Amino acid sequence: MDNERLKKQIDFILEIDKEKNILRQTHITDYVRRENDAEHAWHMAVMVWLLKEYANRDFDLAKAMMMALIHDVVEIDAGDAYAYDEKALEHQKEREDAAAKRIFALLPQEQGEELKALFYEFEENKTPEAQFVHAMDNFQPLLLNDSNNGGDWRSHGVCYNQVYNRQKGSEKGSEFIWQESQKIVEQNVKKGNIKP
Amino acid sequence: MDNERLKKQIDFILEIDKEKNILRQTHITDYVRRENDAEHAWHMAVMVWLLKEYANRDFDLAKAMMMALIHDVVEIDAGDAYAYDEKALEHQKEREDAAAKRIFALLPQEQGEELKALFYEFEENKTPEAQFVHAMDNFQPLLLNDSNNGGDWRSHGVCYNQVYNRQKGSEKGSEFIWQESQKIVEQNVKKGNIKP
Repeated sequence: MDNERLKKQIDFILEIDKEKNILRQTHITDYVRRENDAEHAWHMAVMVWLLKEYANRDFDLAKAMMMALIHDVVEIDAGDAYAYDEKALEHQKEREDAAAKRIFALLPQEQGEELKALFYEFEENKTPEAQFVHAMDNFQPLLLNDSNNGGDWRSHGVCYNQVYNRQKGSEKGSEFIWQESQKIVEQNVKKGNIKP
Repeated sequence: MDNERLKKQIDFILEIDKEKNILRQTHITDYVRRENDAEHAWHMAVMVWLLKEYANRDFDLAKAMMMALIHDVVEIDAGDAYAYDEKALEHQKEREDAAAKRIFALLPQEQGEELKALFYEFEENKTPEAQFVHAMDNFQPLLLNDSNNGGDWRSHGVCYNQVYNRQKGSEKGSEFIWQESQKIVEQNVKKGNIKP
């Protein structure tokens, strides 16, 4: 590859292939195996497009989709921390900052800076794009977990307060999705999938 | 779920989860296992964004990304046909049409029609979005295969003409990517990964 710019872009493209090996706690349909970060991001980006009508505020669709697609890229170095595992969440920020620095630097400089800014925009969670993508980041595993009769919640002994507090974050991006999420959570408490 | 519209959208979201179980011939980095359709689509959508500067014509970014994300959804029913397996490609069109009809009908009607139209726009391969997404659909497995020292080509005994003809399709979407693809193909012929 003698084109230096394309070579850098390809290095990044091949680097992020590693997301296909990073397993989340969530299981895919029928609980056959754990989902990986690439699959989760794909599902979220489709949902950003499909459910955009429910966002609280207008947002830039391509920007939000790309944000969803790359929001977990730092887990290549930092690993996945389960939303309800407080120990794993310690020092996660430092590990993720180091990962962002390394991975986005593979790209041509201005493109790497642009994507790194998009990643931190997601993390800071203030813009309409970041808040709607966060809502999808909550809703996607909620739907899978609900469809699997709460297998992941049961295996981790997750409590109502934990799920409620996590899902409440969706409110900023979509009041509607947050209302519907609460109904799904409550149904799963009734079924015994989530501890009261 | 008492909201009928959201219920249909969720049915579709859970239905397409099955793409995570549809294996392609291409292997992921280090040849550890075969890639699935969801991972491939995720990778392609990221590439649409990253490599957009090389498209022959301006295009709608969000539209092209969504096209990439859902272009293989019909394989849930129709299965994956390897690009160089002529027998598998027979009747593939009929199977895919039936799949498109069933799967997009899960959505609220106007949204299902919109996505089905996007799928057929990809298939017809005439618009700037479809042609650039096709280029990414060729380039993504080319990069993985090249990074794996041509393992997939070697295991299927693939010839230069087959790869050349497939990759040539990228020319419509990106003259630049097509030129660079040819160099990668030729290097792999020299290495003995692709039969002359």
